[in-house]
Amino acid sequence: VTDEFSLIERFFAPLAEGAGGAFALTDDAAVLPPMPGRNLVVTCDGMVEGVHFLATDPAETVGHKVLAVNLSDLAAMGATPLAYVLSIALPRTWMAADLEDWLAGCTAGLGAVQARFGIVLVGGDTVATPGPLSLTVTAFGHVPAGGELCRSGARPGDLIFVSGTIGDAALGLHVLQGATLGLDAEDQARLADRYRRPEPRVALGGHLVGLAHAAVDVSDGLVADLGHICRTSGVAARINTADVPLSPPAARAIDRDPALLAVVLTGGDDYELCFTLPSAAEPALAAIAARSGVAVQRIGLIEDFAAHGTRAAVLLQGPDGAPLVLDRNGYRHF
Amino acid sequence: VTDEFSLIERFFAPLAEGAGGAFALTDDAAVLPPMPGRNLVVTCDGMVEGVHFLATDPAETVGHKVLAVNLSDLAAMGATPLAYVLSIALPRTWMAADLEDWLAGCTAGLGAVQARFGIVLVGGDTVATPGPLSLTVTAFGHVPAGGELCRSGARPGDLIFVSGTIGDAALGLHVLQGATLGLDAEDQARLADRYRRPEPRVALGGHLVGLAHAAVDVSDGLVADLGHICRTSGVAARINTADVPLSPPAARAIDRDPALLAVVLTGGDDYELCFTLPSAAEPALAAIAARSGVAVQRIGLIEDFAAHGTRAAVLLQGPDGAPLVLDRNGYRHF
Repeated sequence: VTDEFSLIERFFAPLAEGAGGAFALTDDAAVLPPMPGRNLVVTCDGMVEGVHFLATDPAETVGHKVLAVNLSDLAAMGATPLAYVLSIALPRTWMAADLEDWLAGCTAGLGAVQARFGIVLVGGDTVATPGPLSLTVTAFGHVPAGGELCRSGARPGDLIFVSGTIGDAALGLHVLQGATLGLDAEDQARLADRYRRPEPRVALGGHLVGLAHAAVDVSDGLVADLGHICRTSGVAARINTADVPLSPPAARAIDRDPALLAVVLTGGDDYELCFTLPSAAEPALAAIAARSGVAVQRIGLIEDFAAHGTRAAVLLQGPDGAPLVLDRNGYRHF
Repeated sequence: VTDEFSLIERFFAPLAEGAGGAFALTDDAAVLPPMPGRNLVVTCDGMVEGVHFLATDPAETVGHKVLAVNLSDLAAMGATPLAYVLSIALPRTWMAADLEDWLAGCTAGLGAVQARFGIVLVGGDTVATPGPLSLTVTAFGHVPAGGELCRSGARPGDLIFVSGTIGDAALGLHVLQGATLGLDAEDQARLADRYRRPEPRVALGGHLVGLAHAAVDVSDGLVADLGHICRTSGVAARINTADVPLSPPAARAIDRDPALLAVVLTGGDDYELCFTLPSAAEPALAAIAARSGVAVQRIGLIEDFAAHGTRAAVLLQGPDGAPLVLDRNGYRHF
């Protein structure tokens, strides 16, 4: 019962139900019908155990996360999710019972996310590996042709916003690695859940089409991802760190250890949106945030790079208005 | 120079040149314009070192193979290739110089294949892994809406054809694992090259749209893949093994060791097309094969399963007309 075909039929084919072009995952490829006037948006993100998630993370949250992080990339483009394919490499050393338990959990996590966003699995690949568990999703969305949000559109004078709260996932990873951060168990659990179960800001991204000049999702860390916008747009950014929105647990952790502010500003895995728009668009944003069910907070200003006064693309101003220098500039994979 | 962003800029961005919607791989996702009247075809296949390719395989052939096997799936649907995304997990233990050498070779292999088929890289993901090197491609093609070739369309009375020659890749893997097969060095090299550098039958697949009833690419082995057609179509197949087309090196190997016929019939990695069509379509096929630059050979007949006379979906008849029983039914990953 553990050959590739029976695993696909038992665990993955149910995730493809209702998608005619997926052929119940029994064909060479999937077929998606044409969408006149819509651009197709494609993104691809992989996760390796021990690198992008922990060996102790429940299978259900691993399934949730690998799909959510890809939907977050679609959200950052303003795209409406459509479908996805999943490639999964399962450790050869796993016993059949463990494999089945893990797949049941993982596909439950995938299924819950896809149901919420109205998408289906349309294909993929299951292989055995001598290495660690790893998963790669390629996700598809659609956006009005020419309406996609790019990183390259930020202009001097734009206001910089983020959704939700920043830094919870990075602090949650510290918790899962054994740090208490001086917090009670409930606060710790809330931060850990933000690491394991990110919420892609799909509705907000869609509403930003035609309004935002540039957008990115916060996956590598706020400073690093805003830096991507700056580099591709040829601009700089000035952030007031006191304006960066914090959850109550994160605020309590920083109260106890102010050095954790650096973790919040540079840690990854939040999957909030960071975007820029002209000040004239600010009044429209409040209504959009309310309709999207997520708060947005202004955190800074896009500046002309030449007039910016520092060689770094992203300048952080601490609570006292003085420049804040951080140890590390976001998470890098190498 | 070995962080993710500089690797992407140096090695992968050149593969995205000319694709406006790829944003030079600097955005969250890629954008593909609408194709009125065309269905989008999506396939996903991964390869793990030590499982799907050998540690001794040159980087250039690994790049060739991972893209070619995905184009082969598109060919089996009758689709014209369009673009692809690549997720690559690089071993953490590699030194920077080895990493760069390997990526230079791999991207040369990818570049040669994409240039031949007129496609571009539009996105992907590069991660470090504690495990083996692995690569996953998701490839996109397009086909006239409703024209896609499926596995499920075979009907009793259909003739069964294969392209090219069968079994070379499986024999080539034996060679690369140290077997001589009693062959000279040139024959061995030709078989090994078929394992390392499969040729996706893209032109043939496209010409079969509207003509073939069912198609599959031979990746798991002729018997297993034809079995996929039989199961999804609810039919059976009768194959005359003497009609299965062999390359001169494969024919010489079987002359020396007739037991190798089982390897040929069940071995994987050929990436030829196996397809069925009504006998009325046979005259058109010769011209199509000539235009596609690949030979096709009739190997058997689709039968009504109930009248088939055996419980196996695929019945092999040996050179003497008697049923041939094989040890293993194609390659399975678990």
